Amino acid sequence: MVTNQPNATEVGALLETLRERAPLVQCITNSVVTGFTANTLLALGAAPAMVDNREEATVFAGVSDAVLINLGTISPASGETMVATAEAAGSAETPWVLDPVAVGGLPLRDRVSAQLVPLRPTVIRGNASEVMSLSGVDGGGRGVDSTVGTEAAVDSARDLSRRTGGTVAVSGPVDHIVTGDDVRTVANGTPMMTKVTGVGCALGAITAAFCACASPADAAFAATAVWTIAADIAMERAVGPGTFAVEILDALHALGPDDVSRLRA
Amino acid sequence: MVTNQPNATEVGALLETLRERAPLVQCITNSVVTGFTANTLLALGAAPAMVDNREEATVFAGVSDAVLINLGTISPASGETMVATAEAAGSAETPWVLDPVAVGGLPLRDRVSAQLVPLRPTVIRGNASEVMSLSGVDGGGRGVDSTVGTEAAVDSARDLSRRTGGTVAVSGPVDHIVTGDDVRTVANGTPMMTKVTGVGCALGAITAAFCACASPADAAFAATAVWTIAADIAMERAVGPGTFAVEILDALHALGPDDVSRLRA
Amino acid sequence: MVTNQPNATEVGALLETLRERAPLVQCITNSVVTGFTANTLLALGAAPAMVDNREEATVFAGVSDAVLINLGTISPASGETMVATAEAAGSAETPWVLDPVAVGGLPLRDRVSAQLVPLRPTVIRGNASEVMSLSGVDGGGRGVDSTVGTEAAVDSARDLSRRTGGTVAVSGPVDHIVTGDDVRTVANGTPMMTKVTGVGCALGAITAAFCACASPADAAFAATAVWTIAADIAMERAVGPGTFAVEILDALHALGPDDVSRLRA
Repeated sequence: MVTNQPNATEVGALLETLRERAPLVQCITNSVVTGFTANTLLALGAAPAMVDNREEATVFAGVSDAVLINLGTISPASGETMVATAEAAGSAETPWVLDPVAVGGLPLRDRVSAQLVPLRPTVIRGNASEVMSLSGVDGGGRGVDSTVGTEAAVDSARDLSRRTGGTVAVSGPVDHIVTGDDVRTVANGTPMMTKVTGVGCALGAITAAFCACASPADAAFAATAVWTIAADIAMERAVGPGTFAVEILDALHALGPDDVSRLRA
Repeated sequence: MVTNQPNATEVGALLETLRERAPLVQCITNSVVTGFTANTLLALGAAPAMVDNREEATVFAGVSDAVLINLGTISPASGETMVATAEAAGSAETPWVLDPVAVGGLPLRDRVSAQLVPLRPTVIRGNASEVMSLSGVDGGGRGVDSTVGTEAAVDSARDLSRRTGGTVAVSGPVDHIVTGDDVRTVANGTPMMTKVTGVGCALGAITAAFCACASPADAAFAATAVWTIAADIAMERAVGPGTFAVEILDALHALGPDDVSRLRA
Repeated sequence: MVTNQPNATEVGALLETLRERAPLVQCITNSVVTGFTANTLLALGAAPAMVDNREEATVFAGVSDAVLINLGTISPASGETMVATAEAAGSAETPWVLDPVAVGGLPLRDRVSAQLVPLRPTVIRGNASEVMSLSGVDGGGRGVDSTVGTEAAVDSARDLSRRTGGTVAVSGPVDHIVTGDDVRTVANGTPMMTKVTGVGCALGAITAAFCACASPADAAFAATAVWTIAADIAMERAVGPGTFAVEILDALHALGPDDVSRLRA
C-alpha cells in the first residue's frame, strides 16, 4: 500500500527550497513548547511568529506562509482564537496544520477539535491515540502519550484524510503519513524523542513550514524525514535527554544531503 | 530531632518504583518553567500533563496520579482554577503539591494561597521566606529569592504541617523536610541551582511524582535527594548555568544506585 | 557623530556594579522567551521576577529595581497590565524598558505601544523595523524580523529619544544606541543571535538590569556590549543554534574584564 514515497534526494531538494523561501510560520501553540518550537523553526530555516491574540492572529493568518494550531494548553479564549484563525487561514488559502494534543476525553479540546476538523486542516499531525480519538474511535490515550501502535491508527487517519481532503501524519516508532489511499512511512527516529517535551509539537511546526513549499503529502513526509533524521544524528552525540534537546537543534540546522540519505522508509 | 530518615538504598528503591509506575503528573505551573518542568518529569521517568484550563483541570485531577500547583505566574483566572483543581484532587484522593512561589506581600498569591492551605496539600514545597510567609510569619522574601536561612523556617514548617496534616519541604543549602515533629535533612546540592530558573519549581514537580508512590514524608525526602544529587553530578560536568541546566536532566535520567549513595543527610 | 562612547574598562566596572547590587528586574514579557530571559538575568547576576498579573505587577513596579515590558505575545488583558505597570513604574521612578516586538501593522500592539511611548520609557530596544514603525515611519517588518538596516533607523531613534527623553537602542549587525544627538555603536555579535529565539528579548532584560545602575545611555550601551561579547565567545564554542543558546549563558555568567576588552565600537 506504500505509494509515491519521495526518496532522499527529493526530500533534500524540498529542504533546500524551504531554506531559500524561509517561510513565515504563525504558531498558536501551547505554553510548554513555545520556545523550543520557535528554535526548531529557526534551526530549520523558517521564520517563526508566535502571534496568538485573536485580533492579530486572524490578520496574520492572511500574511503568514503557514499556520500551526496546537491544542496543548488550550483555554476557552484560545480555543475561540484557534477557530477564528483557522477560518482566516482557509479564506486566505494559507495552509494550516492541526496538532490535536491529548484529544480524547478532555472536554474543551474535544469540542474545539470537533470545530476545527470541518475547517479542513491541510495536515493533521498527532500520535496514534490522538488520531483515533479525533476520528471518533476510542484511542485510549493517557495524557499526551499514545497507548496504541501507529499502525492501529491508519484506518482512522484515512477516514480523517477523506473528511478534510488533506494529509494525516501519525507519529510513532514508524511514522505513517496518510493521504486518502496513499500511505507513506518513515522509520527513522529514536525513543529519546519521547523523553523531551515538545519534540512532537515541533514536528507539527516543521510540517507547517514545509506546507508553504509542497503538497500536504510531500510536506508531511519531508518534515517527518528531516526531523527524525536530525533526531538520529542527535542521538549519536547525546548522553541523555538534556543534551539530546540541544543536539537535535544543531543537527537540524546543519542537515545536508548526506544526512538526508539516511532516510529509511 | 532528626527521625526516620530513609537511607540511600531506600531512596534508590523508591526511584525504581517510580520509574516502573511512570506516574501521570498534572501540572498547573508558571509560564517561565513549564518546559523545564515537563523535561524534568520526563527525565525522572514520570509523565507530565500540563492541563491547566479550569474545565479540563478539574476532570484531569481525578485521572492523574498526582497534581502540582505552582503560583509563580498566577492570574485571577488561574487562581480560581488552582482552587477548583485542589478541591477536585482532594475529592479524588489524588495527592497534590503546593509550591507557593513568591508568597508574602504580593496580594493575589497571598489570597489564593490562603484558600489553598486549608484544602490540605499533601506536600508544600518552598524556600524559607515562602514557608514563613505562608504560615503567617514575616519571611522577608525578595521576589522569588529567600532572604533567611532554612533553619529559621522549621518552626513555620511544623506549624503548617500540623494544619495540613501533610509534609512541608523547605529548600535551601540544607533542605529540611518537616512532617509534624519529624524533621529530615538533605545536604546535597549546589549554589548553581539558584542560577537556573525553575530548578526549585522542578523539585515541586518531582515531589508530586513521588507522592504517587510513597508517603508525603518519604516522597518529599526522595524527591529532594534525587534532584540535589543530580545537581551535584551536573555540577561536576557543567561550566556555567547554561550547561548546568542541560547536564542536570542527563544526570537525573541516568541516576542509578551508585549515584544515590552520594546522599548526605 | 559618535560621542561619549564608554570604553571597555568603564563597561567592565558597570558590570561589576551590577553584580554587586543584583538588581531585581520585573519582566512582563512574551510566553516564548520567559525561561530564557530569566536564565539570562540570572547568568548576568540580576534577580528576575516574572510578575505579570495586573494587581501584583503594579505593586511590584514600586519595589523592583527595573521593569521590562515586551509586547511579543500581547493580549488585550496583558496590554492593559503593561500600561498600568508602566504608569506605576513612572510614579515610583523605577526605570523601565520597552521592547516593541513586531510593532508595525499588527493592530493590538500598535495601539498599546502608542499608549506606552508617551509614558516615557527609560530605554526602547528593538530592531530597525520596529523602531521605525514605532516612530511612525514604515519599517517594513516581517513578523519579528527586520527588513531594513540599523543605520536607516537612527533618525527614527533620535525622534523617539527626543519624545521620551530616554535612550533608543537599535539592534542589528552594528547596534546603534541613540540618546538625543548622542549615537553610540557596538559592532560585536554574530548572525547566530538571529537563529535562537529570545536573544533580542534577553537584551531588553539585560538593559533593564543595567538601568538600575547607570544612566539610560550607559545602561543600554553596557547591556549591548556584554551581551554581544558573550555571543562572540559562545560562537567560538558552539556547533549550531542549540549549543549556542547554552554557551551564551555560560559565557555571560563567566564574563570578566579580559572578555569585555573585546569590545568593538
